[in-house]
Amino acid sequence: MAKELKELTKRADNYSQWYNDLVVKADLAEQSAVRGCMVIKPYGYAIWEKIQRQLDDMFKATGHVNAYFPLLIPKSFLSREAEHVEGFAKECAIVTHHRLRTNADHTGVEVDPDAKLEEELIIRPTSETIIWNTYKNWIHSYRDLPILCNQWANVMRWEMRTRMFLRTAEFLWQEGHTAHATREEALEETVKMINVYADFAEKYMAVPVIKGVKSANERFAGAIDTYTIEAMMQDGKALQSGTSHFLGQNFAKAFDVQFINKENQLEYVWATSWGVSTRLMGALIMTHSDDNGLVLPPRLAPIQVVIVPIFKNDEQLAAITAKVAPMVEKLKAMGISVKYDDADNKRPGFKFADYELKGVPVRLALGARDIENGTVEIMRRDTLEKETIAFEGIEEHIEKLLVDIQDNIFEKARRFRDSKIITVDSYDEFKEKIEEGGFILAHWDGTTETELKIKEDTKATLRCIPLEGDTTPGRCMVTGKPSARRVIFARNY
Amino acid sequence: MAKELKELTKRADNYSQWYNDLVVKADLAEQSAVRGCMVIKPYGYAIWEKIQRQLDDMFKATGHVNAYFPLLIPKSFLSREAEHVEGFAKECAIVTHHRLRTNADHTGVEVDPDAKLEEELIIRPTSETIIWNTYKNWIHSYRDLPILCNQWANVMRWEMRTRMFLRTAEFLWQEGHTAHATREEALEETVKMINVYADFAEKYMAVPVIKGVKSANERFAGAIDTYTIEAMMQDGKALQSGTSHFLGQNFAKAFDVQFINKENQLEYVWATSWGVSTRLMGALIMTHSDDNGLVLPPRLAPIQVVIVPIFKNDEQLAAITAKVAPMVEKLKAMGISVKYDDADNKRPGFKFADYELKGVPVRLALGARDIENGTVEIMRRDTLEKETIAFEGIEEHIEKLLVDIQDNIFEKARRFRDSKIITVDSYDEFKEKIEEGGFILAHWDGTTETELKIKEDTKATLRCIPLEGDTTPGRCMVTGKPSARRVIFARNY
Repeated sequence: MAKELKELTKRADNYSQWYNDLVVKADLAEQSAVRGCMVIKPYGYAIWEKIQRQLDDMFKATGHVNAYFPLLIPKSFLSREAEHVEGFAKECAIVTHHRLRTNADHTGVEVDPDAKLEEELIIRPTSETIIWNTYKNWIHSYRDLPILCNQWANVMRWEMRTRMFLRTAEFLWQEGHTAHATREEALEETVKMINVYADFAEKYMAVPVIKGVKSANERFAGAIDTYTIEAMMQDGKALQSGTSHFLGQNFAKAFDVQFINKENQLEYVWATSWGVSTRLMGALIMTHSDDNGLVLPPRLAPIQVVIVPIFKNDEQLAAITAKVAPMVEKLKAMGISVKYDDADNKRPGFKFADYELKGVPVRLALGARDIENGTVEIMRRDTLEKETIAFEGIEEHIEKLLVDIQDNIFEKARRFRDSKIITVDSYDEFKEKIEEGGFILAHWDGTTETELKIKEDTKATLRCIPLEGDTTPGRCMVTGKPSARRVIFARNY
Repeated sequence: MAKELKELTKRADNYSQWYNDLVVKADLAEQSAVRGCMVIKPYGYAIWEKIQRQLDDMFKATGHVNAYFPLLIPKSFLSREAEHVEGFAKECAIVTHHRLRTNADHTGVEVDPDAKLEEELIIRPTSETIIWNTYKNWIHSYRDLPILCNQWANVMRWEMRTRMFLRTAEFLWQEGHTAHATREEALEETVKMINVYADFAEKYMAVPVIKGVKSANERFAGAIDTYTIEAMMQDGKALQSGTSHFLGQNFAKAFDVQFINKENQLEYVWATSWGVSTRLMGALIMTHSDDNGLVLPPRLAPIQVVIVPIFKNDEQLAAITAKVAPMVEKLKAMGISVKYDDADNKRPGFKFADYELKGVPVRLALGARDIENGTVEIMRRDTLEKETIAFEGIEEHIEKLLVDIQDNIFEKARRFRDSKIITVDSYDEFKEKIEEGGFILAHWDGTTETELKIKEDTKATLRCIPLEGDTTPGRCMVTGKPSARRVIFARNY
């Protein structure tokens, strides 16, 4: 690319602009010609592929299989579950016709009014309805259960305000839809999958998360309970990063899916659904990156190590290339992804800045003197620390360094997050502290009324009732009524 | 699943019904509630995942990267390229509104007339238009070229007559879209990708294909040339299995994508696009399967080896399980996928029939006597041959057998295909022979007029002008005009 590397906006100056700049300048994504829809560029998509591959392995290791269900959902299906239609009808893309025709003045095409559909079709905002309509034919007896399906798909929600990765009209995701013979088994599945998401977030994305349950007001439309993982961004705002829903028998009842249980009685099937989306890319970007660009966790970095030769002429380059080649092979054999960038139309300084912008975890630079001395300059992206070390044994050094970077960025994010979790006891203190960002642990009386008042007063939402941590009861900071335990409030994406 | 295994329709009785039965009974796919759209069931999707993974590796090995472009395309984009809109406008799903509302009698939801889009959006039937509108911003100089992007996506074409996998309204596919500085390079890419498809079809799917170029009449809407791979099904009909298009500068001109070439002149960019879809599943099924069910090539079989224990009591099962366990581990370590089916609620005969139906390449059966004798019964799905062999060294035997099955089904398909390629010299002979199915090599004068007459008279279409084979000129069998070489006609899916 011939374009100049331009300065990123600084986080301190305008966090939101920094994020948008970074998404575009690091070649992750860009706005498309279609309102609210983004183009995921090759570098961004390469990270998403790593996310997908790892999650898919984890789903399969927990007994799930993939399948594919239709993109379009008959309008009437949405109405079957009352809360579900309430949640999704207001923002959906509706297919009404199936043919275009040449317009009267032959300047273009127009919708052919003769090709109107009998029943309109909705582009799936989520697939519970079409899937439960399908499961009806798959399930007759307890022997047909459980069904543990996942699908990787695109979905569409006609959001009014969109931001790349965080909230787009079309997004990519996976949605698991499981069917069970008992309430207990469905609940166990719901919790199992929120744990899979939390493990993935922490071990692969290096993003610390808090697991919890959503309040009734924040629950998925049609769920009995929604489990969530909540991450904290560098501006102190929360990002809901994955959800797992216990759907009870709601969708089985809506689509009349019954089975003969072991006691030979007819019973409605129990359900869960769970999903994560390209929104994870937003969490990844906003948790670790800095004013120089992306910081990628080594386990999800498309390029883990980049090698930049510093040369004045072809002979020097040839000497460096000869020195580097066996190392590249060895690193690849160790399962480490390496790029040797010997392009001669860009200066080393340009390359350095570009790979920093792109978040490559480890950068090596070698010049003629390094060849003489048997040394190499190594830089780690997370701390930007450089050192010159012996070339001999570099592969093992890099392997350890990648592990160290993965651990370090997780710990850094965890320390930051923990430093911004505070406990307040009065509503006045809450109103003051919420302005500083972060998660606030406070007592709440359990009502939607109080939750909505807090949101109206402070723009803070109830992120979750944590699954772990202090469970001491108390009094609601707003109403003084009894509170079972402290819950987490925050402003959020 | 508690359902009974039912008899498949025999191929000789009704080939078309046999195909439909097989797709459903082998749990590959089923019709959905949405007209023309199928549900791809887990077993079918597992085969598709193997296809995807292998193709994706081959695309990456040839320098391509993945990206993702929007599902929806502004209506006006389609009109930019005259032939393209002509080809796709008549069968597309059109989004006209973005909100539903509760209807007057509160019985359901209806389209909210206030939520009409300013410009209608089309669900992509293919993505040349939205992608070239995007590439416009990516390409300025020859240094930005080539761009070698692929996308895995769903697309929609409102087909009137649909058949599962072969022709569905929504289907899954990959579409490569490349941009080049020169005509030569784009042509080279077009040919490279048809070769990748042919390699994949023959080496992985075990489906022999003929590579060729389409006539003007059968060309992709907007292409200068379309390359194709054509496979022959067991009923002698052709199935177009993959295409690679040389688009010239058509889309660059339609979307005004110019670049500064090495001579410092402004020039339009050269393009290719290429794709294969879930239609490959249809080719796979119809090439190899028989009246007992699917026959899968080992390289794409989700389960390569199934082991069925034959036991009368728990002690016998325990002895078999103990014997089998180390073999299962060894096979897995060799990269072979194995299933040990010790379910006690199905008889061995039921299991045998089910795994035959599902096309598992190798089946082992072990009973108490086998344990005593150190033997095992092994059956290969392709020939249904059974033999009892020594248990010792079984893993290496299986490894060789899988290679042998892969080779054998390819050779069998190739022999069948070759036996059904015939040469004719007169139109009368053509009309007679086309009734027997197969590919007919005949001379053709190169005109669309003659091609359409042949189609009207005989329902045969011009499948391709082969890249290889006899290139002796002759006289058109219909008009007697000069013919550059024999081309292939066939009835087709």
